[in-house]
Amino acid sequence: MVMTLTPIERIPLIQPGLNLADQILRCMAAMGLSLQDGDVLVLAQKIVSKSEGRLVNLVDIVPTEQATALAVETEKDPRLVELILRESREVLRTRPGTIIVEHRLGFVCANAGIDHSNVAGSGDETQEWVLLLPENPDHSANRIRKEIRERTGVNVGVLIIDSHGRAWRLGVLGTAIGLAGMPGLVDLRGCHDLFGYELRITQVAVADELAAAASLVMGQAAEGHPAVHVRGFPYPLREGSFSELLRPHQMDLFR
Amino acid sequence: MVMTLTPIERIPLIQPGLNLADQILRCMAAMGLSLQDGDVLVLAQKIVSKSEGRLVNLVDIVPTEQATALAVETEKDPRLVELILRESREVLRTRPGTIIVEHRLGFVCANAGIDHSNVAGSGDETQEWVLLLPENPDHSANRIRKEIRERTGVNVGVLIIDSHGRAWRLGVLGTAIGLAGMPGLVDLRGCHDLFGYELRITQVAVADELAAAASLVMGQAAEGHPAVHVRGFPYPLREGSFSELLRPHQMDLFR
Repeated sequence: MVMTLTPIERIPLIQPGLNLADQILRCMAAMGLSLQDGDVLVLAQKIVSKSEGRLVNLVDIVPTEQATALAVETEKDPRLVELILRESREVLRTRPGTIIVEHRLGFVCANAGIDHSNVAGSGDETQEWVLLLPENPDHSANRIRKEIRERTGVNVGVLIIDSHGRAWRLGVLGTAIGLAGMPGLVDLRGCHDLFGYELRITQVAVADELAAAASLVMGQAAEGHPAVHVRGFPYPLREGSFSELLRPHQMDLFR
Repeated sequence: MVMTLTPIERIPLIQPGLNLADQILRCMAAMGLSLQDGDVLVLAQKIVSKSEGRLVNLVDIVPTEQATALAVETEKDPRLVELILRESREVLRTRPGTIIVEHRLGFVCANAGIDHSNVAGSGDETQEWVLLLPENPDHSANRIRKEIRERTGVNVGVLIIDSHGRAWRLGVLGTAIGLAGMPGLVDLRGCHDLFGYELRITQVAVADELAAAASLVMGQAAEGHPAVHVRGFPYPLREGSFSELLRPHQMDLFR
């Protein structure tokens, strides 16, 4: 099956409280793009987070002693470090500029996914906004999915992604942080190959594979497109959660 | 720009010595698919490896003492462990069933990427074939790219992928192990976002993102498609190497 990824054009700057499902459907309509059952919409976390008002003004944050000490060690703003710690369960590694944490949502990422860039700034020094990840990205995806179904009658998957670094390899990769109506992991145990051998590979991170694919089409810079329409996702839609993708600590050899 | 991934149909079982570029062009022609400058062909390592005769009969392998000891510890075939060690620079972690190594090519993967499945077996106990990764996947990609240019006059990228596990997350992900005529990593340093902030994210693992995308379309089981045609890869083609994606040891916090 052919898979087609189409960046959704002309999504405006997202304000807190905006209905994202409405906005995306309007932009798709303007492009002549329609939805059908089995399609997936992939959304950059920043537009979901902004629509949910997850902006924090650093001017309002008072760092603890722990945050201040870690800020010195990592050469970061102590108020930002305070937010990173509040959003995390555990600090795994640090180096200048980077704090690698287990986020309170359970995944491992740098700086708790808190983003300085692409947040409206005014040059006013009393306004230093940063953007936290959505409170619960699976819930966000589920809400958007339901709103789309109510408005269109169509059953789509919704995937929320962020750009994550990895161990061992350079560069960031689009990675699933929330999803609804689609699988996170697909289990192929019991499937056989052409010669009847049971497959060596038993679990495929299909939501992460789609996150990476959509991330390519989104781009990263000013001309980026924070939402992508996917036709031809080759796995059946079902209820799902990004947490399918989390490796249990006792199975993780690299902590 | 829309990105379209099309699985190439009816690729036959690959025999050692087969000209892959020819075979793929023939299958594409049969589908009415043509190539244009900027397209990328993504190939599963198994067809490249088979065409290069990287099959090894385990019956011919005599394990060293070191391999035998590691085989007991990991509950694996000592002859297979012997091959894993020969294909690796360093063993990073082990657990029953899995040996995580730095492959001699420089990336970290399980069992040195040696594959039992999808290799022709006959039921004959004197024939226990396994498949090693290509000797030099960048060279393989480059050769295929040149052959395609000679036959068609078209300038395409070629990407060779395998399925790799990750730290922290479950499931395998299509991952770049060799490439030619396309970037591995794209450096966005100096790019700015909508508000003029310099981007937080500076290097994007575009070859790994495309590997993951193509892997979705390939599938894993009997009905899989080991080659995918990509139209609309959103980055300019250039000379490249998978080694752009390798994190230098001194920059790796998770070894």
